[in-house]
Amino acid sequence: MTDPLSSTFAALADPTRRAILARLATGECSVTELAEPFEMSMPAVSKHLRVLERAGLIARGREAQWRPCRIEAAPLKAVAEWTEQYRQIWETRFDNLELYLQQLQAQEKNHAKRPGRKPRRK
Amino acid sequence: MTDPLSSTFAALADPTRRAILARLATGECSVTELAEPFEMSMPAVSKHLRVLERAGLIARGREAQWRPCRIEAAPLKAVAEWTEQYRQIWETRFDNLELYLQQLQAQEKNHAKRPGRKPRRK
Repeated sequence: MTDPLSSTFAALADPTRRAILARLATGECSVTELAEPFEMSMPAVSKHLRVLERAGLIARGREAQWRPCRIEAAPLKAVAEWTEQYRQIWETRFDNLELYLQQLQAQEKNHAKRPGRKPRRK
Repeated sequence: MTDPLSSTFAALADPTRRAILARLATGECSVTELAEPFEMSMPAVSKHLRVLERAGLIARGREAQWRPCRIEAAPLKAVAEWTEQYRQIWETRFDNLELYLQQLQAQEKNHAKRPGRKPRRK
């Protein structure tokens, strides 16, 4: 059995499914409305929706004719919490990189200045 | 070709690979050291490392004998930035849920109080 976080990550590993979530973030809509911008067959869209639904990333209404899809926030919150534990790593790495680039720029500036500092012969 | 964010999410969709990242977050180590806690064959660990390496989540040293693995922060930062756009949704939803639970509790309190409020017959 797949653990919830692995299901969420697997469901998010597809640009069409992430685009569907981005659309649903603006509000509920029907499968037909969702399919429009993707130029995809309805079965293809339905397949993506099933993956998202199994991962708990979307929920579907119970109305027989019009089963609106809505985004579910809990798994996205779990992803954010999981990722947060690594924040210190990327912040430290990017700080070090910035420091290194500043040092490089300072060195280049000094090199560029040198010919100007050379005392002119009169 | 898989887009970078999809590769990252696919690589993270496995508890062993996430455990390897958690181990590497504490510092560089060799494949042998990584394999120890997982009771896994070296080929199985190597396969997971290749998935993580292709997704840019780890990098490996070039020393012939000892190729230390280290965590790479950039793809994790990309995941955090992608997830961040949904923060408002889960915060709003959880605020609404909290409000709803508070209302339920208040109602229950009132119901519980009612018998006490009933004027006693003397």
